[in-house]
Amino acid sequence: MAKTLKTSRPRARLPRGFVDRSPGDIRATDRMMASIREVFERYGFDPIETPAFEYTDALGKFLPDQDRPGEGVFSLQDDDEKWMSLRYDLTAPLARHVAENLQNLVMPYRTYRAGYVFRNEKPGPGRFRQFMQFDADTVGAPGVTADAEMCMMMADTMEALGIARGDYVVRVNNRKVLDGVMEAIGVTDDRQKLAVLRAIDKLDKFGPEGVKLLLGEGRKDESGDFTKGAGLSHKQIASFDEFLINTQITGHDIDPKSSLYVRDDEFINDRGWTYPNINTIVGLYPMLESSAIGQQALVELEEMFKILPLSGYGSKRIRVDRSVVRGLEYYTGPVYECELTFPVTNEKGETVQFGAVAGGGRYDGLVERFTGQKVPATGFSIGVSRLATALKNLGKLGADTVPAPVLVCIMDRDAENLGRYQKMVQTLRDAGIRAELYQGNPKNFGNQLKYADRRGCPLAIIQGADERERGEVQIKDLALGARMAQTIDSREEWTEARAAQFTVAEADLVDAVRKALAEG
Amino acid sequence: MAKTLKTSRPRARLPRGFVDRSPGDIRATDRMMASIREVFERYGFDPIETPAFEYTDALGKFLPDQDRPGEGVFSLQDDDEKWMSLRYDLTAPLARHVAENLQNLVMPYRTYRAGYVFRNEKPGPGRFRQFMQFDADTVGAPGVTADAEMCMMMADTMEALGIARGDYVVRVNNRKVLDGVMEAIGVTDDRQKLAVLRAIDKLDKFGPEGVKLLLGEGRKDESGDFTKGAGLSHKQIASFDEFLINTQITGHDIDPKSSLYVRDDEFINDRGWTYPNINTIVGLYPMLESSAIGQQALVELEEMFKILPLSGYGSKRIRVDRSVVRGLEYYTGPVYECELTFPVTNEKGETVQFGAVAGGGRYDGLVERFTGQKVPATGFSIGVSRLATALKNLGKLGADTVPAPVLVCIMDRDAENLGRYQKMVQTLRDAGIRAELYQGNPKNFGNQLKYADRRGCPLAIIQGADERERGEVQIKDLALGARMAQTIDSREEWTEARAAQFTVAEADLVDAVRKALAEG
Repeated sequence: MAKTLKTSRPRARLPRGFVDRSPGDIRATDRMMASIREVFERYGFDPIETPAFEYTDALGKFLPDQDRPGEGVFSLQDDDEKWMSLRYDLTAPLARHVAENLQNLVMPYRTYRAGYVFRNEKPGPGRFRQFMQFDADTVGAPGVTADAEMCMMMADTMEALGIARGDYVVRVNNRKVLDGVMEAIGVTDDRQKLAVLRAIDKLDKFGPEGVKLLLGEGRKDESGDFTKGAGLSHKQIASFDEFLINTQITGHDIDPKSSLYVRDDEFINDRGWTYPNINTIVGLYPMLESSAIGQQALVELEEMFKILPLSGYGSKRIRVDRSVVRGLEYYTGPVYECELTFPVTNEKGETVQFGAVAGGGRYDGLVERFTGQKVPATGFSIGVSRLATALKNLGKLGADTVPAPVLVCIMDRDAENLGRYQKMVQTLRDAGIRAELYQGNPKNFGNQLKYADRRGCPLAIIQGADERERGEVQIKDLALGARMAQTIDSREEWTEARAAQFTVAEADLVDAVRKALAEG
Repeated sequence: MAKTLKTSRPRARLPRGFVDRSPGDIRATDRMMASIREVFERYGFDPIETPAFEYTDALGKFLPDQDRPGEGVFSLQDDDEKWMSLRYDLTAPLARHVAENLQNLVMPYRTYRAGYVFRNEKPGPGRFRQFMQFDADTVGAPGVTADAEMCMMMADTMEALGIARGDYVVRVNNRKVLDGVMEAIGVTDDRQKLAVLRAIDKLDKFGPEGVKLLLGEGRKDESGDFTKGAGLSHKQIASFDEFLINTQITGHDIDPKSSLYVRDDEFINDRGWTYPNINTIVGLYPMLESSAIGQQALVELEEMFKILPLSGYGSKRIRVDRSVVRGLEYYTGPVYECELTFPVTNEKGETVQFGAVAGGGRYDGLVERFTGQKVPATGFSIGVSRLATALKNLGKLGADTVPAPVLVCIMDRDAENLGRYQKMVQTLRDAGIRAELYQGNPKNFGNQLKYADRRGCPLAIIQGADERERGEVQIKDLALGARMAQTIDSREEWTEARAAQFTVAEADLVDAVRKALAEG
């Protein structure tokens, strides 16, 4: 048999679901994150950072959609046989950090973190396996004042990023609402409860009919894959009917004339504050009357929706929405998410709702997992990349503000002159001007100007033997030259265009460049 | 047999070799990285970012000390059976990025990147398995002007970080020097060449005798582990003798009176430039005369050491040092590293040299691995965490500049009053003042003040029913109170100390807080 000689060269390509980021994207996201950080710091939060790896048992398995062990998470075994996993969110590692440092932390512990998280999932359009989250949490805070504050901070963050009031909304519910409904209809098995939670969380994705399939026997997707359902009876599923379908009374379409609607300024009405009272909220959840945990949910919601308008945050910014459940298993009380409400045009030209860009809730049991000691906590996570895409759509992401550098060209290629050119560059840099020496093969001068053009350099500095003899440099205003070239018709005008090129004494280089840049 | 009931609680602890980072560390490192970024941008470099994972074959195996496959790197297998690895540096991923985007990149491509890299190594004191690197590279730059510029940028970065000239030095060599020596003494086998390289790279760690063992049969370390050596003959090893031992002529101890020493300002001497000429440099490497590749090394070094002083960078900042080899296999030409030269006192009270905080070199073959096409490149990497430790030692890292928040205390715990307190907090925040509501259990007022004290809050805002009735708030100046408490002896003075607490109209809260903070 003939052996085939094959090249052993590796192919240059990224693993599926991972991306490289461009300068514009990086700079814009950095600015965005600086704005978020500023709001969080103003709220009294301090940064903390945990590493990418945790022991697998410390992370726990709280990801939605991942019932089989190891699924959804990147894991590997250390030398000592222990399993480690890359963090899939920033909450589970925070719980480990708190449990590990419980004695030294000042509680309540207000903390924020930004970092990459990893999901071992099938990548898809807009679905990446590594993405940036920006989280804030208050640990050791038992009351819903802390949850209410998180909702306000979400709203303030959106506005700090330039998203207008009315273009976003923070929607709030309580995980105990769902617990109450399940109690009322007799769902008691933990696995079944989890299946119900995950089914309801799919409302945006699969619609009411899809959710009902997931509450019952199960659902087959387009590829033929079957997801086993929660196994509820028809009667039990019917209890969720109004819950799922009657969106009129969800926060999505809250009527400004309804008794649930509160204006931002209503609290100042001479102490005659208006806010949704317990009866109004009960009206949203009739089936909870028979459930103890359901009643608790209502008390917590009522307290939050007193504090919020009293603090100046009305329904335009923060509202009740009983369709919010959040997919993560570890939430135990209030859950909240921030949704962008303006329509966005996607790549296919379709108008779509952008949906949630941040979400979170109360997780009173996560630290207890380690210590056995109750440490109540609440917090949320911003999907940084998702939010950046949204801001780009809104035209709020900001353009690349770093100008291209001034290019010093190479005419004479001996070491002595290379040193002189480099010295010019250093002189410009020392004066705070972004500048560079051409670092390609300098033999072809045209390539240098082509480079300057493609790079968007505003100016090119040129010094041949004649200019050097006279102690001068030529400055070519490439931006001006390009503008002129667009309007030039005749030979005479070409001559005028020489204005885009002028000569100065080498000693005046910095001043001349500064002036040309200021005029450009 | 009796079964033991064991708790299934996971232990809260980090995997070995990974750390959590504190607020002070995060803020200081962020400021440090902003300074580095500013220098790199001024030099015309733009950011790019690659993900944490690459296909294992795309990364290649270039780590020093790792001869067995998979060692040194965290790897796992994807669903489709392909092996992926976490990047161990930022250079190999850049080569993949360039090879993948060769058609669209404007060359020469000046780029910088900051990010975490991962090493699957035995952790030790100061040796972590995840750490931050900050890299700059120029890709598509064939000439040593690009290498010289990298050395200047290293020097400028150190000074931007507050490290004085003379407290650091950039040391330069050329990988072809070592290639030339090996050619001269007849080492031709690639594996043997690599073993020699790695042995020489251990000079700082094991000293000349240790290196000689590694050049010969091998070396047994303290734990009894044996590292196989390069297997050179005694005669061959002797050729490295002067190379290794005669540190007088390395850059470590360069004599300002020697012909190799150049002052920063020497180039301006009315064109009577002084710089090390070819003969001086040959003097450093006598055995290279018989080697073609060795001669090439000398030409490159000479060109760099003409350009550098001509650009204003003398030997105090950048110098030749033939003991520099750099451990990574992929370098092909100039190699350079930046060393801190001031003595540092370590935790044990010993005076130590800090050593290299940045290093790099030319790697003309890394992109070619993928494309078969030569794409010359050069660049270096700053060890961010290492450099941060050094700056901390120098007192240049800077303190935590974010003040602790103003604390609004809770006196009345009903929802209506919680809303009022929260509103005060929001009013302060809207005025740009860092503030927070106490989020712990508010029943014990003393705990609130204890929290404010531990957190370092400058002021506490208090409003009970009486103050509320009168439309007032109390402001407790905790910083002032603490200072007073230190000097108070008698009961009368305690009364005076009440000055640290005063009452203002609620409408004047923001102004009063601002004034108290400014005075504090």
